[in-house]
Amino acid sequence: MFKYKIINDPVHGFISLPSEEILPVINWPVFQRLRRISQMGLSYLVYPGAHHTRFHHAIGAMHLMARATDVLREKQIDISSEERLAAMKAILLHDIGHGPFSHALEFALMQKVTHEDISLALMERYNRETGGTLNLALRIFRNQYKKKFLHKLISSQLDVDRMDYLQRDSFYTGVIEGRINAERIIEMLNVHNDEITVEEKGIYSVEKFIVSRRFMYWQVYFHKTSLMFEKILEQTLRRAKWLYQNGRPLFAHENLVYFLENDIDVVHEESLEYFIRLTDDDLWFHLKQWTENPDPVLSFLASSIVYRRPFAIEIAKESFEKPYLEKIKTKTERLFGEAEDGAGYLVLTGTVRNKAYDRVHNPIYISMKNGAVKEFSETTDHHYIKALSESVVKYYLIYPKNI
Amino acid sequence: MFKYKIINDPVHGFISLPSEEILPVINWPVFQRLRRISQMGLSYLVYPGAHHTRFHHAIGAMHLMARATDVLREKQIDISSEERLAAMKAILLHDIGHGPFSHALEFALMQKVTHEDISLALMERYNRETGGTLNLALRIFRNQYKKKFLHKLISSQLDVDRMDYLQRDSFYTGVIEGRINAERIIEMLNVHNDEITVEEKGIYSVEKFIVSRRFMYWQVYFHKTSLMFEKILEQTLRRAKWLYQNGRPLFAHENLVYFLENDIDVVHEESLEYFIRLTDDDLWFHLKQWTENPDPVLSFLASSIVYRRPFAIEIAKESFEKPYLEKIKTKTERLFGEAEDGAGYLVLTGTVRNKAYDRVHNPIYISMKNGAVKEFSETTDHHYIKALSESVVKYYLIYPKNI
Amino acid sequence: MFKYKIINDPVHGFISLPSEEILPVINWPVFQRLRRISQMGLSYLVYPGAHHTRFHHAIGAMHLMARATDVLREKQIDISSEERLAAMKAILLHDIGHGPFSHALEFALMQKVTHEDISLALMERYNRETGGTLNLALRIFRNQYKKKFLHKLISSQLDVDRMDYLQRDSFYTGVIEGRINAERIIEMLNVHNDEITVEEKGIYSVEKFIVSRRFMYWQVYFHKTSLMFEKILEQTLRRAKWLYQNGRPLFAHENLVYFLENDIDVVHEESLEYFIRLTDDDLWFHLKQWTENPDPVLSFLASSIVYRRPFAIEIAKESFEKPYLEKIKTKTERLFGEAEDGAGYLVLTGTVRNKAYDRVHNPIYISMKNGAVKEFSETTDHHYIKALSESVVKYYLIYPKNI
Amino acid sequence: MFKYKIINDPVHGFISLPSEEILPVINWPVFQRLRRISQMGLSYLVYPGAHHTRFHHAIGAMHLMARATDVLREKQIDISSEERLAAMKAILLHDIGHGPFSHALEFALMQKVTHEDISLALMERYNRETGGTLNLALRIFRNQYKKKFLHKLISSQLDVDRMDYLQRDSFYTGVIEGRINAERIIEMLNVHNDEITVEEKGIYSVEKFIVSRRFMYWQVYFHKTSLMFEKILEQTLRRAKWLYQNGRPLFAHENLVYFLENDIDVVHEESLEYFIRLTDDDLWFHLKQWTENPDPVLSFLASSIVYRRPFAIEIAKESFEKPYLEKIKTKTERLFGEAEDGAGYLVLTGTVRNKAYDRVHNPIYISMKNGAVKEFSETTDHHYIKALSESVVKYYLIYPKNI
Repeated sequence: MFKYKIINDPVHGFISLPSEEILPVINWPVFQRLRRISQMGLSYLVYPGAHHTRFHHAIGAMHLMARATDVLREKQIDISSEERLAAMKAILLHDIGHGPFSHALEFALMQKVTHEDISLALMERYNRETGGTLNLALRIFRNQYKKKFLHKLISSQLDVDRMDYLQRDSFYTGVIEGRINAERIIEMLNVHNDEITVEEKGIYSVEKFIVSRRFMYWQVYFHKTSLMFEKILEQTLRRAKWLYQNGRPLFAHENLVYFLENDIDVVHEESLEYFIRLTDDDLWFHLKQWTENPDPVLSFLASSIVYRRPFAIEIAKESFEKPYLEKIKTKTERLFGEAEDGAGYLVLTGTVRNKAYDRVHNPIYISMKNGAVKEFSETTDHHYIKALSESVVKYYLIYPKNI
Repeated sequence: MFKYKIINDPVHGFISLPSEEILPVINWPVFQRLRRISQMGLSYLVYPGAHHTRFHHAIGAMHLMARATDVLREKQIDISSEERLAAMKAILLHDIGHGPFSHALEFALMQKVTHEDISLALMERYNRETGGTLNLALRIFRNQYKKKFLHKLISSQLDVDRMDYLQRDSFYTGVIEGRINAERIIEMLNVHNDEITVEEKGIYSVEKFIVSRRFMYWQVYFHKTSLMFEKILEQTLRRAKWLYQNGRPLFAHENLVYFLENDIDVVHEESLEYFIRLTDDDLWFHLKQWTENPDPVLSFLASSIVYRRPFAIEIAKESFEKPYLEKIKTKTERLFGEAEDGAGYLVLTGTVRNKAYDRVHNPIYISMKNGAVKEFSETTDHHYIKALSESVVKYYLIYPKNI
Repeated sequence: MFKYKIINDPVHGFISLPSEEILPVINWPVFQRLRRISQMGLSYLVYPGAHHTRFHHAIGAMHLMARATDVLREKQIDISSEERLAAMKAILLHDIGHGPFSHALEFALMQKVTHEDISLALMERYNRETGGTLNLALRIFRNQYKKKFLHKLISSQLDVDRMDYLQRDSFYTGVIEGRINAERIIEMLNVHNDEITVEEKGIYSVEKFIVSRRFMYWQVYFHKTSLMFEKILEQTLRRAKWLYQNGRPLFAHENLVYFLENDIDVVHEESLEYFIRLTDDDLWFHLKQWTENPDPVLSFLASSIVYRRPFAIEIAKESFEKPYLEKIKTKTERLFGEAEDGAGYLVLTGTVRNKAYDRVHNPIYISMKNGAVKEFSETTDHHYIKALSESVVKYYLIYPKNI
Repeated sequence: MFKYKIINDPVHGFISLPSEEILPVINWPVFQRLRRISQMGLSYLVYPGAHHTRFHHAIGAMHLMARATDVLREKQIDISSEERLAAMKAILLHDIGHGPFSHALEFALMQKVTHEDISLALMERYNRETGGTLNLALRIFRNQYKKKFLHKLISSQLDVDRMDYLQRDSFYTGVIEGRINAERIIEMLNVHNDEITVEEKGIYSVEKFIVSRRFMYWQVYFHKTSLMFEKILEQTLRRAKWLYQNGRPLFAHENLVYFLENDIDVVHEESLEYFIRLTDDDLWFHLKQWTENPDPVLSFLASSIVYRRPFAIEIAKESFEKPYLEKIKTKTERLFGEAEDGAGYLVLTGTVRNKAYDRVHNPIYISMKNGAVKEFSETTDHHYIKALSESVVKYYLIYPKNI
């Protein structure tokens, strides 16, 4: 008898895990470690309910993959049990390369390596260790498998990854405007010429999906306080690295030291090994020690996060003017005068950008009732969808309050 | 001690009614009659959960008015208890002029009279009968009161009427994509220069409100099967009127006869009196009898609704071509040959139109952090909002299946 | 390709209907008529959201039957596609014998016939008309099929009928305390020795199901105002029958006259034929006319419902004392003195009773991890479950307010 | 103008914080630290959604306190703004004395000190530091204030603490059967003779509250896998302490060393100071290091948690028999033979107990319509409520799998 394990998910209800096939992947220590990595980084400093993890998201995305392949099979799309299982494994592991707070190391300490590179390297390691149990999953993941539509379910404008995280992040933040109807979109999926399509009657649901995603970006993911804390975390790590490399006193456990000492620019066995040792708790542990570090810049940065003392952040549609930036830097230096290059770490600018729908590089296809297949923005009666394809950019400026 | 009555509402939770002030309005028989008028007409033939009533919607809108005025008062907007109560009464009664299936009589039998005219006439009647208890409510309703913003809460792009019906219709149909966050929008309301504004941090919620409303229009209110049944109901009433006026046999109770016999083009005491006697049950009662009427056109139309036997409906972006229409009419006449002007009632065309956001006639104002007030589409970083102001029109063609 | 039709259900999400097999049953006019029969009678006079219908409940129960049989098949219980479909049809039609307001005719005008008798007669009629398409469904419904557990899914302590109506009624009334987790209970179902069991890990869910059902009975179904209106409706129909049979003036359409004229004590073709013509709208139509009937008793009763003017109701743990009843009757007669036997219709007493769990006649079985099967109350560590098996009785007294 | 800060809570919706009065308490670093303490300990190893924190729960409970005092004031109960604020502060801080995983230190390393003692000590410290801003809150918390009913809202059978955690834990675990209707219960609260009562019409909601709480205890809080991990965590800490005190090699940061070195039996400034430095991340950080400790017992225990490798757990209604325990210990020793006293840490037994409703020590009072006040179990018509007052005890036995 085929065995299932049932997981309670407040977002999707009950999730069934086929015991023999999927459980070993979930029990892999590298996967279990995702339980200690926050899905939304430090967003819980703004949305106190948003403590969900990469682990939970991966399970949810796997569930949606199971649903999507079931729906397609009902519509006579040929998907073997082996292919279905491989797609489920691929989506389960698609985020395995995330580190502490999802992106912190990546942005601050390993700038030449992406979490996608690490995901792939870890999947390959697992595949070697288990005698090839991920062969097919890897081909789908790398888009080397003949049925391209399976890859699209993992990575495209309407993939199950996005469907899960939008619904889950909306649920845990309590921002109900971001809620999408993943169930309905999945019911409407189909395949034409090896391409994932949505049936015509689902076009308004696709529209809502795009607008909800846009909403979540600007209201939640780029929420200014949340963005500020992410950036402050990066600065903290950068300052710690600078202190370490310049021989200043710094509490640091050997697992972190590896990243402070080295500039990691390739993924190899050693860097992987250190990478998977670090989860959110390691950073919290260090941040708490660093609030008492003799360097006033590091202690100020770390305290900002640990005690939730926000920096000022300004958002603008255009880049900030030089003189204004200089004035802020000067004032900051006055306060942190004794520290070397204080303002270099405490004042920062940058941009965030989002394109609600990229109809050129990442189109959504609609299968019309008359049998034709059209790119989504061509089907709608409204010019406004085309307008959603424009890229939106915003500039931020972060600096200590009360300078 | 001030007394409250509590109503359980699955949409907003508990609703408190101030006993002495509001209860008499609710107990007015003309208001109680809204319990027997479907909020969404015949939409429950498509969405079987959508059996909610005008009564429930009116109570819900009143609740949101109570919340909105509370929020504004917390923000130091001057609203007296008397004004608050008057606004609550005005919104409670704003739809009192609806008849069976909300719009059926209006569209089919009283084409020169709108439900707004009737609402006003009924409110005036109640006011006379109760010695002026609606004086202030009427001034607000007619926009004759000095504080114009109170009228805007009753009737504008972002009024509590829309907020309630979008949330309620989304809930009862199960179409979760249409769900808006009325609570959040209300938290963001403010008043500047006697105009309702939304605070800047609420702009993405306003955007979502507009897109959700657009979604509900095209996916639900203009759902093609639902639209078809609304139109068939009108045709049924028109055919019954024709039969009556031409002396053919027709079962009809005197309350309905009044509307079959007369062309009502003004609201007066007599027409009002007959109007308030009719609710959905009267039409169902007659429709059921009419399924057995000797006229094949009437019985076909009535049976379509009573037994849920859909007509064909086509939707197009442009108007249908004459020859195509003629072909369909000819075929229909062949089937209903013996009946006079069968195709005239069984084949019909028309348009539906919706503008997601009318920034010219019905603008939403945003109060910016810097103190300025801007029209909504000017504040957003995205051109697509402006595109939402375009009017969308669609053409429909309805005719018997299997002709 | 197998075709599905999808229905949006706010309670269970999307419901799939297998087109060729199930649609004909749903399109049967006698089934469509359930759209005009309120699931909870007049409860919407207390819970304004509770306008859901027998139609919607039947579809929901069919969906849970589809889920339950799927779960059992995954657990290797042998259920053929034909059996599954038959069980789906049987549950779809289990309530087909309900008339206006679910129970009004049954209680007031046809006291010797139950809705179960009528359901069976109508199912048999459909079976004859369609050449035996319900043969197997009828055997399961009558518990004449060898696999007894299929009947238990339709009718037992934990049947899908109860699971749907508890969840649905809780949803539409907004009484969230009554919410059960049908999904979870269904996941836990199994079959041992042809008996439906719940797996041991589901015992607390079963406990919650029983307590929620108890809650819904006393808080909602027997809500005193709701109970009062049900009883007043019965009295109205009884008074109308008395007036009719005594030759007093009474508006009544021929379809209702049949029941006023005759004492129906058997189900035959003629009575069935009249029965299925009546739905809620007919009663509303008559009630509205009767508010102006010359008999002060009938007009008082009808107005109570139409204008929602509650009678007084008292609830007690013991029966009311004679002298108290006499005093109330005397006062009532004083007010309605000119009417014959006014107090006989306007003052009434009776009982309501409910047993939360009948472990003798309707036991729930638990399959223990060690392989044993036990009656539910034997498995629990708490004496209180056994106490739930006691029958609770309450006495009510209803009479006009302000006498 | 009075300022509010709004927090998004997926459980209660929007929560308003009065800026000047409450924000300083929330910004207190000792309070912020609750963001890093899991509300449900290690339960997320079973319910992956249950990552909510003590911080979030405290905010939620404060919100319910604000609602409850508003409701009481509407019912003319005299509560001054100062008293309301003090009650809000008291509930906000009632759990401030929790340490890592809520109870881990308390149970494993500080057995003579309870979290209640620490809460009080920390509140007193804050009060001293802020010049008495908690004077009234402390009197209410300690039940030394004349209006005893305010204390009851903080600590009693129906306090806002329980109302929040039951609703929140049910939400985040996805165990919807545990959901209570806090809003409804709060609407029904009243005060008689300085005692909190629930109005008679709320008795079924109280019943549901008690049964839901019982459900959450046995299904969730004492879920056997969850219970097992809690106990294994305690054993891990106890083993680490033993190793430390016996001079064995052990990675331990000085903040934890304090608790390994000393037997803390009183709360004083020094122990407090160390206590508030530790949060969940510290334990995760150490657990991960300990998976590689040379002591096979410690590494086995730590790995069980870090890699989620469950021990076996048996639950019984009676205590386990000596010979059976001895057999298990012997087998365990065989596997961990080289380690001193391995079985002493790896095999453990104990009990869990819960009384659903303690009508003697913690009664709920109902205010009857006739003005009387009765203890809850006296008002109900069902013997089963009395049965809920019985204490339920279960025995557990935990040991390594595959011994």
